Amino acid sequence: MTERLDAQFAFLTEADRLKQVIRATPLCDGSRRENSGEHSWHLALYALVLADQAGPDVNIDRVVRMLILHDLVEIDTGDVPIHSADGQAHGSAAVAEAEARAADRIFGLLPEDIGVGLRALWEEFEAAETPDAVFAKALDRVQPVLHNLASGGGSWNDYAVNARQLEARVGTKVARGAPALWAHLKGRLRGYFPDI
Amino acid sequence: MTERLDAQFAFLTEADRLKQVIRATPLCDGSRRENSGEHSWHLALYALVLADQAGPDVNIDRVVRMLILHDLVEIDTGDVPIHSADGQAHGSAAVAEAEARAADRIFGLLPEDIGVGLRALWEEFEAAETPDAVFAKALDRVQPVLHNLASGGGSWNDYAVNARQLEARVGTKVARGAPALWAHLKGRLRGYFPDI
Repeated sequence: MTERLDAQFAFLTEADRLKQVIRATPLCDGSRRENSGEHSWHLALYALVLADQAGPDVNIDRVVRMLILHDLVEIDTGDVPIHSADGQAHGSAAVAEAEARAADRIFGLLPEDIGVGLRALWEEFEAAETPDAVFAKALDRVQPVLHNLASGGGSWNDYAVNARQLEARVGTKVARGAPALWAHLKGRLRGYFPDI
Repeated sequence: MTERLDAQFAFLTEADRLKQVIRATPLCDGSRRENSGEHSWHLALYALVLADQAGPDVNIDRVVRMLILHDLVEIDTGDVPIHSADGQAHGSAAVAEAEARAADRIFGLLPEDIGVGLRALWEEFEAAETPDAVFAKALDRVQPVLHNLASGGGSWNDYAVNARQLEARVGTKVARGAPALWAHLKGRLRGYFPDI
């Protein structure tokens, strides 16, 4: 019992480091950049609030669980902004391998019966094939759009993003998991990207 | 549809401010104090990882939802550290009234069918009567113990907390929702509080 709890607490203490992984996206007021811990909380709240945008076979509680876990590997790999040059390697074999090693180490801190289940949820998110994962991925792309809009451009300015790039890197993923959300956001985005 | 989504996004943008509410508890490495947004994420992860410490009538997904929402009112009221002089007013009529006003405003940003359900979950957490809320409250008291232990005393030093105060403000709540957790933590706490 004591050894088991020690392992659970070791994992939770290690997870604390996600609060020091800094993302490209600013807070909505532009005062500083967001960290991946608070980002994960915000996304879980997105799932609760935008549940009516999910298809009928989406289980919101599983989506929330995925979003809580989805960035933990960044403790080892760091956040790779999707609009950066490196971001274009998202999904490459090298990145997938580094993330798998991080998942081995981090979920491996847990008692096996817990770690296996949580890692499976993270892998499901990464694979983006099930309805739950597709919806979770859509929310992960929606939130930075709101922050960039609120803060005057945010990471779009830093990486000189154009409408075509935004459609490819963000629009397709949002439209796949939450089509009405993307249609709505496009209306807001025309102020920044007239040809979107 | 557009008006409804505008309201959902207005709430989610307002919620972003929780990332700027600073708590008394440090990160585990002591580098800075934690904010209430990342704290809420960490607690949701605590619920997933320590689910085996919950009683048989606890629904972990409801606990996770409560923990995601539990500090939102702090956007208006700020965080009141439990070990501070003001912290002793936790549960007083004046504090409860300020928090209710904050909940009116913040959950009131949402479409009514969403806001009413989320507010009810927050109220259930605050009342700390149902098994889900009692377990969620226990986790909310466990996490700062781990952070203070990891960082060399943290808010216990700032507020000169003694063993009797820790038992009253933390121990009773943890023991109520997760008795084995408190028994385990007491073993770790004896280095700081020999008479606990």
